[in-house]
Amino acid sequence: MIEIYGHGGDRETAAGLYGLPAADFLDFSANINPLGPPDEVKEALMNGLQSVVRYPDPGHRSLKGLLSRRLRVSPERISIGNGAAESMALILLGLRPQRVGLVEPCFSEYAELSLKFGGSINRVYGKASLQWRADVEDIQRLITEVDLLFMGQPNNPNGVQYGRDELLAVAAAAERSGTYLVLDEAFMDFIPAAERITLLPELERYSRVILIRSMTKFYAIPGLRLGYALAAPDVIRRMTNQQVTWSVNGFALLAGEACLSSGQAYEDETLKLIAQERQRLLSGLSELGCGVTASQTNYLLVRAPGMWKAVELQDALGRRGVLIRSCAMYPGLTDSHFRIAVKDQEANQVLLSVLEAVLEGERRGGR
Amino acid sequence: MIEIYGHGGDRETAAGLYGLPAADFLDFSANINPLGPPDEVKEALMNGLQSVVRYPDPGHRSLKGLLSRRLRVSPERISIGNGAAESMALILLGLRPQRVGLVEPCFSEYAELSLKFGGSINRVYGKASLQWRADVEDIQRLITEVDLLFMGQPNNPNGVQYGRDELLAVAAAAERSGTYLVLDEAFMDFIPAAERITLLPELERYSRVILIRSMTKFYAIPGLRLGYALAAPDVIRRMTNQQVTWSVNGFALLAGEACLSSGQAYEDETLKLIAQERQRLLSGLSELGCGVTASQTNYLLVRAPGMWKAVELQDALGRRGVLIRSCAMYPGLTDSHFRIAVKDQEANQVLLSVLEAVLEGERRGGR
Repeated sequence: MIEIYGHGGDRETAAGLYGLPAADFLDFSANINPLGPPDEVKEALMNGLQSVVRYPDPGHRSLKGLLSRRLRVSPERISIGNGAAESMALILLGLRPQRVGLVEPCFSEYAELSLKFGGSINRVYGKASLQWRADVEDIQRLITEVDLLFMGQPNNPNGVQYGRDELLAVAAAAERSGTYLVLDEAFMDFIPAAERITLLPELERYSRVILIRSMTKFYAIPGLRLGYALAAPDVIRRMTNQQVTWSVNGFALLAGEACLSSGQAYEDETLKLIAQERQRLLSGLSELGCGVTASQTNYLLVRAPGMWKAVELQDALGRRGVLIRSCAMYPGLTDSHFRIAVKDQEANQVLLSVLEAVLEGERRGGR
Repeated sequence: MIEIYGHGGDRETAAGLYGLPAADFLDFSANINPLGPPDEVKEALMNGLQSVVRYPDPGHRSLKGLLSRRLRVSPERISIGNGAAESMALILLGLRPQRVGLVEPCFSEYAELSLKFGGSINRVYGKASLQWRADVEDIQRLITEVDLLFMGQPNNPNGVQYGRDELLAVAAAAERSGTYLVLDEAFMDFIPAAERITLLPELERYSRVILIRSMTKFYAIPGLRLGYALAAPDVIRRMTNQQVTWSVNGFALLAGEACLSSGQAYEDETLKLIAQERQRLLSGLSELGCGVTASQTNYLLVRAPGMWKAVELQDALGRRGVLIRSCAMYPGLTDSHFRIAVKDQEANQVLLSVLEAVLEGERRGGR
């Protein structure tokens, strides 16, 4: 398996395992916008290379100002992170929850980081019959038992969304019990009409709600690391107080500013491409006998057909230069689950044909 | 004052204070190699821009391998950091010292980070008569009173070095009392014949000695953040266990690998330039009535002449587009101390002439 560091996107491990150069893999194990970064980002980096000799702004003032105007959130409610993962870490370091609640299956860093910084974990599980969506009643009960609860909206790896009314009920329960509710909106930008399902407009009404966003996935800059958190000013201060000076590098700030000045066309094109290609993958995978979880995101949770285990399929595809994310280690899922990113047409067709060849080979007894 | 985030190099704050564009300042407040990055780094970044769409290697395997060969230290004794500041944070998070010892004046992050992560601080002070060098006996006594001690070698902001025999005595005291000794060698690469004063060759003999190195200063890439720590494998494991996944960005790894493949010529040219220009500044500043602390580093601790306070001088120079680092906030120093980086001939001459004009204006009563 390639997730020795707990995540997809690890081409170096794949290179060692499958004997191909790291750059040669078609990587479906990381959920990155297949369009690549907006032209504005490429230009900003090209023109800004000489700024490497200067320290980054430790106050992230320019990017914070742009985000503030775009999101209509005041700067003292914004914390810029060295990737969304650092934002999560700063929340845990700043708030020091003893008991952390998780809605499984979910992004593995919630548990990793919580244990790293001394928290214990309480879990509720999604129901297989509901595409691993959890009952809101279970979540509300969990809220009363923990100091902080993580929820993905939409959730990774299954793409499940909760409705606005459901989230408002959960947020109200969080306020009542003094529990921090962290809504991880890392993939929110990929969701059509996202304003339906984000609590962003309500943020000021809640002292305990924290939103996390990533800029690396939608804008395709995971190499640079950039995310942010939105919360009440006292939460932001406690996070900032735990952040190492210059933690966010100068190129990430530069790229982030360029992302926010990129036009609507990039966003529209991304959503159109993802919708069309997700449908292609959904149909193709279903024809090959895979079970696919419905999703509006840029990734799909898939159940391998027949007796295939995810790690076996991962190996068979990996030797052919295609990487998928095994989900066997997610609490609540099975060892036949894997996740794939939605990429562009050419890549998706390669995935489907390589997968067909592997499954066909199996039928012929040649695994 | 421009050090609102506790450090030099903050052009954004300077721009707000002095009404000039951030990029227009001649910045003597950050100690960066005036040659800029080696050509290999510029080429690697230019050619590697497209790698922004991929996650960085969470194991930093390629850079660790190169460092291991160059330093003759096995990879399990190396931790790569998102800047040397993150390496310091990981040491504190991983080892959780209750009492941290400092030899003042020293880099302000030692205290900042120690307090951030719950430690208390014990201090000894350098002696004004010895250029703020501390007595080794005082350091050895402090070692017995704390769980972890930070020492700069060479020290920032005064450039003081301790001899190998002195450090070996301190390291032995640390081993005896079970105290971690963190030797911050962030500026070691600037020191001629550095092998005289580093404990690197002895690292394996000590379970409690930790070395920190920075790659951002010598190789002029502070915008990207890159540092590392060298220590016993169990210390490195405890540090890695506290590090957020992908904390070190992909461009920093790329640049770091290129730095290590840059030739001896860049190192030689840097040391030659710094020696020559440090002498120019030393002479010029002395002629202007400043007191200058002797140093082999790429920065000088300076005492302003007459009744000038460092922050007044900083303001007067800042309005003329030249930034210096006030050292008034360093415990043990005075409000007339400031620090300047050694830059190239042209920049250094500008500093000297602007400083002369400011001091001359003062004499004429026109401050």
